[in-house]
Amino acid sequence: MNNKLIVGIIGAGRIGKVHAASISNHMPQVQIKAISDVNFKAAEDVAKNYGIPFVYQDYKKILEDSEIQAVLICSSTDTHSPISIEAAQAGKHIFCEKPIDHNLNKIKMVLEAVEKAEIKYQVGFNRRFDHNFKAVRNAVKEEKIGDVHIVKITSRDPQEPPIEYVKVSGGIFLDMTIHDFDMARYLTGSEVTEVFAVGNCLVNPEIAEAGDVDTAIVTLKFENGAMAVIDNSRRAEYGYDQRAEVFGSKGSVAVSNDTLSSAVISTQEGIVSEKPLYFFLERYMSSFVDEMSQFVESILNDTQTAVNADDGLKAVLIGLAAKKSLSVGRPVKISEIG
Amino acid sequence: MNNKLIVGIIGAGRIGKVHAASISNHMPQVQIKAISDVNFKAAEDVAKNYGIPFVYQDYKKILEDSEIQAVLICSSTDTHSPISIEAAQAGKHIFCEKPIDHNLNKIKMVLEAVEKAEIKYQVGFNRRFDHNFKAVRNAVKEEKIGDVHIVKITSRDPQEPPIEYVKVSGGIFLDMTIHDFDMARYLTGSEVTEVFAVGNCLVNPEIAEAGDVDTAIVTLKFENGAMAVIDNSRRAEYGYDQRAEVFGSKGSVAVSNDTLSSAVISTQEGIVSEKPLYFFLERYMSSFVDEMSQFVESILNDTQTAVNADDGLKAVLIGLAAKKSLSVGRPVKISEIG
Amino acid sequence: MNNKLIVGIIGAGRIGKVHAASISNHMPQVQIKAISDVNFKAAEDVAKNYGIPFVYQDYKKILEDSEIQAVLICSSTDTHSPISIEAAQAGKHIFCEKPIDHNLNKIKMVLEAVEKAEIKYQVGFNRRFDHNFKAVRNAVKEEKIGDVHIVKITSRDPQEPPIEYVKVSGGIFLDMTIHDFDMARYLTGSEVTEVFAVGNCLVNPEIAEAGDVDTAIVTLKFENGAMAVIDNSRRAEYGYDQRAEVFGSKGSVAVSNDTLSSAVISTQEGIVSEKPLYFFLERYMSSFVDEMSQFVESILNDTQTAVNADDGLKAVLIGLAAKKSLSVGRPVKISEIG
Amino acid sequence: MNNKLIVGIIGAGRIGKVHAASISNHMPQVQIKAISDVNFKAAEDVAKNYGIPFVYQDYKKILEDSEIQAVLICSSTDTHSPISIEAAQAGKHIFCEKPIDHNLNKIKMVLEAVEKAEIKYQVGFNRRFDHNFKAVRNAVKEEKIGDVHIVKITSRDPQEPPIEYVKVSGGIFLDMTIHDFDMARYLTGSEVTEVFAVGNCLVNPEIAEAGDVDTAIVTLKFENGAMAVIDNSRRAEYGYDQRAEVFGSKGSVAVSNDTLSSAVISTQEGIVSEKPLYFFLERYMSSFVDEMSQFVESILNDTQTAVNADDGLKAVLIGLAAKKSLSVGRPVKISEIG
Repeated sequence: MNNKLIVGIIGAGRIGKVHAASISNHMPQVQIKAISDVNFKAAEDVAKNYGIPFVYQDYKKILEDSEIQAVLICSSTDTHSPISIEAAQAGKHIFCEKPIDHNLNKIKMVLEAVEKAEIKYQVGFNRRFDHNFKAVRNAVKEEKIGDVHIVKITSRDPQEPPIEYVKVSGGIFLDMTIHDFDMARYLTGSEVTEVFAVGNCLVNPEIAEAGDVDTAIVTLKFENGAMAVIDNSRRAEYGYDQRAEVFGSKGSVAVSNDTLSSAVISTQEGIVSEKPLYFFLERYMSSFVDEMSQFVESILNDTQTAVNADDGLKAVLIGLAAKKSLSVGRPVKISEIG
Repeated sequence: MNNKLIVGIIGAGRIGKVHAASISNHMPQVQIKAISDVNFKAAEDVAKNYGIPFVYQDYKKILEDSEIQAVLICSSTDTHSPISIEAAQAGKHIFCEKPIDHNLNKIKMVLEAVEKAEIKYQVGFNRRFDHNFKAVRNAVKEEKIGDVHIVKITSRDPQEPPIEYVKVSGGIFLDMTIHDFDMARYLTGSEVTEVFAVGNCLVNPEIAEAGDVDTAIVTLKFENGAMAVIDNSRRAEYGYDQRAEVFGSKGSVAVSNDTLSSAVISTQEGIVSEKPLYFFLERYMSSFVDEMSQFVESILNDTQTAVNADDGLKAVLIGLAAKKSLSVGRPVKISEIG
Repeated sequence: MNNKLIVGIIGAGRIGKVHAASISNHMPQVQIKAISDVNFKAAEDVAKNYGIPFVYQDYKKILEDSEIQAVLICSSTDTHSPISIEAAQAGKHIFCEKPIDHNLNKIKMVLEAVEKAEIKYQVGFNRRFDHNFKAVRNAVKEEKIGDVHIVKITSRDPQEPPIEYVKVSGGIFLDMTIHDFDMARYLTGSEVTEVFAVGNCLVNPEIAEAGDVDTAIVTLKFENGAMAVIDNSRRAEYGYDQRAEVFGSKGSVAVSNDTLSSAVISTQEGIVSEKPLYFFLERYMSSFVDEMSQFVESILNDTQTAVNADDGLKAVLIGLAAKKSLSVGRPVKISEIG
Repeated sequence: MNNKLIVGIIGAGRIGKVHAASISNHMPQVQIKAISDVNFKAAEDVAKNYGIPFVYQDYKKILEDSEIQAVLICSSTDTHSPISIEAAQAGKHIFCEKPIDHNLNKIKMVLEAVEKAEIKYQVGFNRRFDHNFKAVRNAVKEEKIGDVHIVKITSRDPQEPPIEYVKVSGGIFLDMTIHDFDMARYLTGSEVTEVFAVGNCLVNPEIAEAGDVDTAIVTLKFENGAMAVIDNSRRAEYGYDQRAEVFGSKGSVAVSNDTLSSAVISTQEGIVSEKPLYFFLERYMSSFVDEMSQFVESILNDTQTAVNADDGLKAVLIGLAAKKSLSVGRPVKISEIG
C-alpha cells in the first residue's frame, strides 16, 4: 500500500463520482484516502461505494492530511480557483475540473500559486482524451493532412440545462463552448488570435431571459493562419452531437458520433441507425478514465500534465472574447481581453 | 416540329455544350435552332455534334430570329447583363448563367428589362436541382427538422483555377461562394441580413498576389433568426467536396459527397472508399439537365422560373457584403450594400 | 447517316423501350431503323417516341431488311433461341436478353448458329456494366484483394412478380438468380464446378403452389478453390437489395446499395437514410446504356462482345444445377447437367 | 464481505485473466477467493494483480472449499467436461468456457450432472452479450423485421492460430464456427435441423496437413423454415471481421465491425477509415464483463442462466454435423448426429 499514490477527492457530485469510479476500477496504483463534500451524505455514499476510508464535510481536512499527495477538485465552479490556490500552497498536486474560474485575475493567481508550489496541475478538458478526437489530433500531428487550413467543430447538447444552472453558468461560451475552444487549440496546435461570435435564443426563451443564447456559431482565427468554426446548440433532439473535422493542405480528417451499436434496421420506413449516445457521461466515459490515468502518470513519472493551468487560462480567454464579440457585434482580438 | 420550343444558345464553351447535350438527349420538346460564339469554330463543332442548323459568330443574329423563343446565355460573365437586356428587349425568354453581373446597377437594369418585357428569366444556380441538395430542401420544407437554426455548407474545389481566371473572377465570394450563398437562401427559405467573412491565402500564394483569398469561412445571419456558416477552399486534395447540413428544432438533415461507386476495399492499409466525384461536370451533370428541363417547363406551362433574376441579385448582394466584410474586418449588413 | 450502325429492335416491352431510349439519347453513331412487336400498337408507340421509321408486327420483316446490321432480341424468353438462330442465319449481329433459353439443347443450337455465322452475340447480363459491380471486378482484376477465397452476393427483389409470371419463369434460379450466377463468374473469373441450393417459400404461398420457392441460399464451388454464396428473396420490404462482397488473400471489396440521395435525417426517431432505389430500371439504368454501348462498340471495332453466348450457356447450366440440387437435396456437379 | 458471492477461478490463462479483471473492476458483489492453474506461477501472477487470497496448482482444492459457491472453468478444453462434472457434484455453480467438450457423450454426462446437482450452469458464448449482436437479437425479438427468413454471419479471424493449436482444436467448426452456430440459434430463436458445409484450405497449407480447412461456408436450415449462411476465414488481412445480418418479412437488421475511432482520413489516396478492432479481447471485452455479470445475477437472483448446458450441447451438435457434411460432401441432418 505504501507505494501507491494517495489522493483525496473534493466534491462528491456527478463528476466526483466519475473520478472515484475510474480510480477504483482502473488504477490499482492509486488509493483514494478521503472524500469531502459540503453535502456530507453525498460524500458518505461515494465513500461507501468505493471503500474510501475518510469522509469530510470540509475540504480543508483533506488539504491538511500530509499523506495525501494529490487532490481532485470537483466542487462547484466558483470554488475551483480558491481551492486550487490553497491546495497548491499545501503542496498537493491538483486535478481541477474546467473552468478554473470565469475571472481572469483569479485564474492568474492560480497560475502563480501553481508555479510557486512546483506542483502538477491538470485541467479537466477530458475530450482531449476521447478516442475520436485523439485520432483527429494524431492525424494532424503525423501530418497526414498537411498544414491545417480549416477546423470545424460541432458540439450540440441533447437538452438545455435547468434555467437555474444557466443563470450561474457564465454563459454558453464559458460553460459549453469552452470545451470546443480547448479542442480547437488542441487539434491545431496553434493559438487563437481573434474571435467572432453570432448567437441567438432559438431553443428556449427562458435562456434569453437569463441573458444567454442557446444557439451559436463562433469563428476563430489562429496564429498560423488557420481558421476554425464551432457551431453549438443547447438542444439536439437526436442526442449529443460531438463531431470534428480538420481540413488541411493534404486532405481532411473527420470524426462522427458514437452509438450504442452499429445496428442498421431497414424496413419500409427507411434505413434507420442508432442515435448518438445521449449523455456526456456515456459518451465520454473512457475519456474520463484516460485523463485521470494520465494525471496519475504525470505525478508518478514526474512529467508534464497533458492539459495544464495555462490551457485552462487560454480557453477562458477565448470564451471571454466570444462573449464580448456577441455583445458588441464585431470580431474581438484575444489581446483585447485581460 | 412546330409545337416545339425553339431556343438559341449564346456561347459554345464548356457550359454551352452541357446545355446543348442536355436538351438534345433529354428534351424532345425543344429544338435548338442556333448557336453562336465569338469563336465561330467552337460554335460550329457543337452545332455539328447536336445537329443545330444555324451557327453564328454574332449573338445578335440569334436575337433577331423571331422564331427563336428563348435563349441560353452561356457567354463570358461580363456579357451576361448586356445580352440579358438585349434579349429581354427582343422578347426572348432567358436562361442566364450565374452571376448575372458583378455590378449591382447592371443587375438592377436586367431586372427592370425582364419585368418590362414580361419574359421568363432563370439564373443558372444548378445546385438547387441536385438530388442531394433537393433532398435537404425537401426535408426542411416538409418540416422534418422543424424550424431552421443552423445551416452548414462545405464547398471545396478540387483545384484552384488558373491565375488568369482568378484575376477576372470577381474574387472567391462572387465566383465560387456565390453558389453557396444561393444554397443558403434556398435551404432556409429566408433572407440574409448580415455577413461576416474571414479568409486567407493558404493554397497558392499567386492567389494572394492577385488580391484574392483561397480559403474562407463566411457566417450569415438570416431574417428568421437562423445562422449559417460556409467553408470554402480552392483546393481539396481528395476531390470536389460538396456537403450541407441543416439543423433545426426537431433535428438535422445532412448530405455527403457522391462517388463513382460504393466500393469499399479493406486491406492491411485500412478501409478505403472512393473519393468524391472530382469535377463539377461529373458531380452536377444531372442537375444541369434538371435546371434546363424546369426552365423549359416554366415557359411551356407559363409558370414561374425556379431561380429568378431576383435570386441572381440576392446572391451577388451577399457576395459583395462578404467581400467588404473581409476587407474591413467586421460584419457587414446587406442593407449597407447597394 | 450512311456511316451509322443500323439496328432493329424485336420486342417493344419494358426492356425494348429501355434500349430504344439508351440508343436515342446516348449513341449518335446508331440508327434504329425498325421495331417489331406481336402487339403492333406497343411497337408503334415506341417508334413514335424515338423517331423509328419502320414498325412491324412480324420480326421477320426486320431480319429480311438487308440494311439492318444488328438486332436486339427483347421479346419473350421462349422466343430468344429461335429468333437468335434465325437472326444469326440472316447474318445479323445479336444482342439477346437473358436467358437465351431454359433448354440446354436449344442454347447449344444458338451457339452453333452464332459460330457458323461469325456474328457478334451479346447476352443481356447488364449488371456486369453496373458502376458498383464493375468496381468490385476491377479490384479483383487489379489484385487489390489477392486470390479470391469467398464471394457473397445478396440479391433481393422489392416484390415478387405476378403469379402468372412465376409459373412461366422457369423458377427463381433461372429467372432471378441467373443474374447472380453470371455475377459470380464475372467477379471471380473462374468457373463453377458444384452447386448446392436450399430454398423455401416464406414470402407468398402462391409461389409454393406454382412449384417454386421465394427465398433461397445457393452455395457455389469454383475451379480455383474459391466458394460463393448467394442469398435471394422475392420480397425485401425496404426495396431492391443488390450487394456483393469478394474476400481474398489480401482483403475484401464490397459494394452496397444505391440511393436517390445521401440525405440522412436525424431526429428523436433515429438516424434515417434513404432506402435503396426500388426498381431495377432505376437502379440499373446506366448499366443498360453501357451494355448497349459496348455491344455497339464491339461491332464497330470488330472486337469480342463483353458477355457472349457461352456466358449465357454457363449461367443456365448453374441455374439448372441449382434447380436439381434443391429438388434432390444434395450438391450437384455442373458436369451432371447437360 | 459475508453477503458477497464467493467464486473460484480454474485456469489462469488468457480468458481466466479476463474474468478475474471483469469481476475485480466491475462486480463489487463478488469476491474471488481462489485461483488455480497447473502452471502455479501463472495463477500466482493473476492472484497478485487482483488481490485473490488463495492460489493452488490443483483445482480440486477449489472444489473442496465449501465457502466457494461458484467456479469459472477456464482451463484447457479437454478438462471442461470432467471438471464440470466434479464441480457439479461438489454443488458449485459453474461458468464453463466453450466448448463443453468435443465428445457428445461427455457433454451429455455434464448435462446429467448439472441437472442432478440443480446448480446454475453457463457456457461462455460471450458474443450473445456483445452490444452489436444484442441489438440484432433485440430487433428480431421486438419483431421489427418480422419473421426471420435469412441469417448471414461473417466471422473471420485476423490470423490463423499456431499449427500446434489447430491440431488439437477439434477442427474449424468446433473451434471457431461454434460461436457462429450459437449465434445463429440465438439470433433466430429456432433450432437447426440440417447443415451443409463447404471448405477449403486457402490460407495456410499447413492447416490442410493438419487435416483441417481454413475457409468455409456453412448453410443451416431451421425448424421454422429460416435459413442461415456462415462464412469463415482463418485470416482476414484487415483484422477481426465480425458481422451479422438478419433478413425477415418486414426488413432486415445488420451490424458491422467496431473500430477504435470513427476517424475518416480523406486524401489523394482515397477515403480511409479504421480497420476493425484486431483482437478478440479488444473486440469483445465488454461482452466478457456482461456475460460474467449475468452469470452472477442468475445465481444471486436464482434465475436461469442466459446460455445453459443445453445451448453448449446444441452448438457442438451443429459443429459435428458440419464436420461430417464437409467430409461426406452432402447435407447432414442434426438427427443423424448423436
